[in-house]
Amino acid sequence: MTLAYDGTEFHGWQIQPGLPTVEATVSAILSRIEEAPVRIFGSGRTDAGVHALGQVASFDLTNPIPVENLRKAMNRLLPASIRILEVAEMPPEFHARLDAVAKTYEYRIYLGESCPPFERHYVYHHPYPLNHAAMKLMAEVFTGTHDMTVFAAADPRYQDGYNMVRTIFSSVLDGQPEWLIYRVRGTGFLKHMVRNLVGTLIEAGRGNIQPDQWPPRCGNTVPARGLFLVSVEYPPAG
Amino acid sequence: MTLAYDGTEFHGWQIQPGLPTVEATVSAILSRIEEAPVRIFGSGRTDAGVHALGQVASFDLTNPIPVENLRKAMNRLLPASIRILEVAEMPPEFHARLDAVAKTYEYRIYLGESCPPFERHYVYHHPYPLNHAAMKLMAEVFTGTHDMTVFAAADPRYQDGYNMVRTIFSSVLDGQPEWLIYRVRGTGFLKHMVRNLVGTLIEAGRGNIQPDQWPPRCGNTVPARGLFLVSVEYPPAG
Repeated sequence: MTLAYDGTEFHGWQIQPGLPTVEATVSAILSRIEEAPVRIFGSGRTDAGVHALGQVASFDLTNPIPVENLRKAMNRLLPASIRILEVAEMPPEFHARLDAVAKTYEYRIYLGESCPPFERHYVYHHPYPLNHAAMKLMAEVFTGTHDMTVFAAADPRYQDGYNMVRTIFSSVLDGQPEWLIYRVRGTGFLKHMVRNLVGTLIEAGRGNIQPDQWPPRCGNTVPARGLFLVSVEYPPAG
Repeated sequence: MTLAYDGTEFHGWQIQPGLPTVEATVSAILSRIEEAPVRIFGSGRTDAGVHALGQVASFDLTNPIPVENLRKAMNRLLPASIRILEVAEMPPEFHARLDAVAKTYEYRIYLGESCPPFERHYVYHHPYPLNHAAMKLMAEVFTGTHDMTVFAAADPRYQDGYNMVRTIFSSVLDGQPEWLIYRVRGTGFLKHMVRNLVGTLIEAGRGNIQPDQWPPRCGNTVPARGLFLVSVEYPPAG
């Protein structure tokens, strides 16, 4: 299934005891439809406050409900903050995380002096001067295959031998007078990686790091609310 | 002052004991700056859940703080759901409600099957067929000067002798495949009047009433969350 969600009221994707999460909410609804526990596998976790326009998750169901009816039933039962956009039958071996070949994220920065109230959960409000040209240059430098350790938050998964190399296919900053929109597409992203890349763009925009070479250090992690998981890609079927 | 707010978390504009309202929130901040109670006069009340892009309110302050500093101080102290867009000094007799000569409201209807989670607080989700041409015709019929009693909710103010006549300068429905945007500009609006006009447009869109003549009855009141107070107009100064 492909789903969109407003991450504002959720403690991220992953199930956590006693906290509202997207995974817990969606798997509870599926379990109700299946009348048995259903586990779902997201393409990856999103942190608390991060939004999704096109997250993908896979699951097994024995209930023979047609996919379109299933989608509608789920949307009837789910809160309006989560919408199921598509449900498709896949080969039994399909796995939303293991089979993903690329992901696209978007990060939204609002530069105007006063943040519109309707945007407050969906942007990072940064009303300070930034050198957009330097940020655009820095964004381009991120493309290619790199060890991304410097951009990753600490995580118990990142032990010796864990592959910290990721490939970024495209990394583009679009600058408008009141907005900066950063889009990045790559094989995969480590914990906090997009938010740390954006923090590094901001350091370049402030003139604190050289924008035309691989950055010597990582900027501050920018807030989760500006981040959207846009889409997840899989190899063509067959 | 001109202010924008997300009405989702407020019980409307007007002060109500024990409930969060926009008026109560803003006047508490002004009273803190003035170090004495400050009463504010809105151009009109907005109901619970109704939003504003450009509400206007007037108040008296003895504190000699420059208007631009006042605006910034208010935005620092207010929740992000309310933003002060402009503060201007006016002649002492200015009153935001009594001096208003026109108001513009917008109502947003989302027609798509699945409402984007990010729009859920800002639209009326109506995923059913509607005759857009009939609705556009009906919208045009609303223009002019009419007794609007049929479109007003019951209110203790509406006693014998209360003037229920209002003039609508423009009333336009913009139809797109997944959206209907209704804009109405008039001298003033009675309680629930815009939401009842929109409910009547929907009745015309369903084919339940004739769209080319003054409607014989009022449709259902549509939800507050699709309604935005766009702007309030005053006579030119001097």
